[in-house]
Amino acid sequence: MALKKKPVTGMRDILPGEMQVRDFVMDQIKETYRSFGFTQMETPCVEHIENLTSKQGGDNEKLIFRILKRGEKLDLENAAGENDLVDTGLRYDLTVPLARYFSNNAAQLPTPFKALQMGSVWRADRPQRGRFRQFTQCDIDILGDASSMAEIELILATTTALGRICPDNRFEVRINDRNILRGMALYSGFAEDTLETVFIILDKMDKIGCDGVAAELLDNGYDETAVSRYMELLTGIDTDAGGVRRLGETLAEVMPRTVTDGLADIMDTVTQVSETDFVLKFDPTLVRGMSYYTGTIFEVSMEGLGVSVAGGGRYDKMIGKFTGVDTPACGFSIGFERIVTILMEQGGKAQDQTVKKAYLVEKGMDRDRFAGIMKQAMSERKAGVCVLVSQMNKNKKFQKEQLTKDGYTEFVEFYREALK
Amino acid sequence: MALKKKPVTGMRDILPGEMQVRDFVMDQIKETYRSFGFTQMETPCVEHIENLTSKQGGDNEKLIFRILKRGEKLDLENAAGENDLVDTGLRYDLTVPLARYFSNNAAQLPTPFKALQMGSVWRADRPQRGRFRQFTQCDIDILGDASSMAEIELILATTTALGRICPDNRFEVRINDRNILRGMALYSGFAEDTLETVFIILDKMDKIGCDGVAAELLDNGYDETAVSRYMELLTGIDTDAGGVRRLGETLAEVMPRTVTDGLADIMDTVTQVSETDFVLKFDPTLVRGMSYYTGTIFEVSMEGLGVSVAGGGRYDKMIGKFTGVDTPACGFSIGFERIVTILMEQGGKAQDQTVKKAYLVEKGMDRDRFAGIMKQAMSERKAGVCVLVSQMNKNKKFQKEQLTKDGYTEFVEFYREALK
Repeated sequence: MALKKKPVTGMRDILPGEMQVRDFVMDQIKETYRSFGFTQMETPCVEHIENLTSKQGGDNEKLIFRILKRGEKLDLENAAGENDLVDTGLRYDLTVPLARYFSNNAAQLPTPFKALQMGSVWRADRPQRGRFRQFTQCDIDILGDASSMAEIELILATTTALGRICPDNRFEVRINDRNILRGMALYSGFAEDTLETVFIILDKMDKIGCDGVAAELLDNGYDETAVSRYMELLTGIDTDAGGVRRLGETLAEVMPRTVTDGLADIMDTVTQVSETDFVLKFDPTLVRGMSYYTGTIFEVSMEGLGVSVAGGGRYDKMIGKFTGVDTPACGFSIGFERIVTILMEQGGKAQDQTVKKAYLVEKGMDRDRFAGIMKQAMSERKAGVCVLVSQMNKNKKFQKEQLTKDGYTEFVEFYREALK
Repeated sequence: MALKKKPVTGMRDILPGEMQVRDFVMDQIKETYRSFGFTQMETPCVEHIENLTSKQGGDNEKLIFRILKRGEKLDLENAAGENDLVDTGLRYDLTVPLARYFSNNAAQLPTPFKALQMGSVWRADRPQRGRFRQFTQCDIDILGDASSMAEIELILATTTALGRICPDNRFEVRINDRNILRGMALYSGFAEDTLETVFIILDKMDKIGCDGVAAELLDNGYDETAVSRYMELLTGIDTDAGGVRRLGETLAEVMPRTVTDGLADIMDTVTQVSETDFVLKFDPTLVRGMSYYTGTIFEVSMEGLGVSVAGGGRYDKMIGKFTGVDTPACGFSIGFERIVTILMEQGGKAQDQTVKKAYLVEKGMDRDRFAGIMKQAMSERKAGVCVLVSQMNKNKKFQKEQLTKDGYTEFVEFYREALK
């Protein structure tokens, strides 16, 4: 068979220039989260197919890369369908493996466990610009803390990291709570068992606007009074902590005040403590698709770019599916690939400050002198300089131009004998 | 289906303690190699099955995790065998993907290209202690440099990195050349077309010793005179650069002197330039299994541990299989997992020097005071301290013991009111 030069469909080779930016982003994330007491951990990229298809992953479960069973386990003749051929697959996110990891290793982990994960995930999405079938996720999760300290730390840590990575971009953190979402819908008069659909429609707010959402709710046969009451409620809210507390008064009949007060407290504390400049606001239309969220949800977007660069929330019921005992859990995921794209579009400024020096050595250099040149390179490297030792090409001008493109700013030329 | 807690067979969860050691090793490798002008790059973990089964990988090709085709491409009914079901697989090393990457991106890469890769690879080996089905490889390769500068830089860079990672271990670099291997066998009287088998037997030297190798050669029907001449030659060599040059004189009839002189020059230069303390010696019995090597080969082992921790060599014919044009190539692979194991066994000393401080906050703290505590944490974090903010447990003593295990050495306790 002929060898193929291109990467597999939908995946890509990462060139050195982008690699530098990726590395910078990773380092900032790691350093920041570590300073908040998060500890790094890792799960295998390959996961049991049972865990990947346990309905935690929503639509992502349709996009799994399945791995063929091996050896005697593979019985092609008697296989009735795909499921008989596979027992594992590539993970589509880091949350399902984290839940498995925690259930497997809880005895050896601190309580609460503040986890930091950075790793590749795979989804067989239709290939399109900016979307790839292998991409990196950066997640932080706090397992075993039911208090709002978890939310506060997650928001502070993530905004601190983003502020370091993109100091020139202002961003906005929107926050909501699944219970408030529910309270507002119930208060408006929607029936309990129709709420899922209401939220699916509400989730389109940023695309079709208020009128669009109202129209679609009516199209779906919802009661006109409920819809207009809902729209009035949604649009009449102040998005600061005070607004959340007042909303709690309004919803007092359908929801305990502790929910809104708790969210307002989180907002007040984050605003008071944060050293990064960002906008924090309550967004009653924030839904976030993943069905596993049970409480607070949040999303971060970059001003002027309109894209979400991070998101997360509380999911208190997932770990229990593995362990049998519910464990409070709250997480934040940074959209690593989006941030890299933003930095690359801004010119990939985020490079390290190391001096890059190239030694160009004429061919045929005497061995002893060559060793001396290498010794010099070693001692410069020890002092923190990046030194590339390279043979001098005939077209020295072109060679230096190329090296300049690769970030080399100093050149030292070594000749066999003195230039005439 | 029930969810599974354990990782997939042969793969493993990495706990925070080991993760710190892994991270330390990665950082040292990255920093060292970068100072030598290597640039990081990445290929997808998923590779075309054609590339993975092109006979570059020897026995590793039997251990591939194959990925099921997706969508319309998967035609289960008409599939005659495994090959009809898969079009990709997980990479079993980083060298084959590097060759593909180089052939795909050469126009955008510097010449020579000094590549650094760190990533996971997968092999469905029989699970056993210390061997896993997913593991990390760290490779450096220089593509496009036919001169011995490549070998010199690779050995200097790798020994510098190892010296930083394991300052308490002395190591030994053994070096040979496939052409010398060939020359010695021809000189002894083995027929050209039987050399592969001779080398397979010679490769067992560290396990069965000189006598064992001689016996096995005789068992395989090789001529007694050739075997005894070979043994004499192998055992009579001085392992320094001088010895290599003298060997060149002996082999003058079957091999050009440039081969031995070249190797001796590499040895002299490395010895003269290196700032790391290690033993460098010529090993005429070093074979290294991979059939793709074409010239110099090298291997590093730790003194007293007897395990190889790095190895590599020149493979000038592989890139041409992708591009049609041969490109000189030389690489070194650090046995990342072995080094992590060694460090873990030595107590995982290689940890960062950050001060780790835990704030224990009594429950029910007034919100304003809590915000003040968090502000204090933020400013300590900014100053480089790792601060974990945690609720104070009832059993404070146990909580502090656990935190001490996780590396926390300072505790600050915050109470709602003054202790009586």
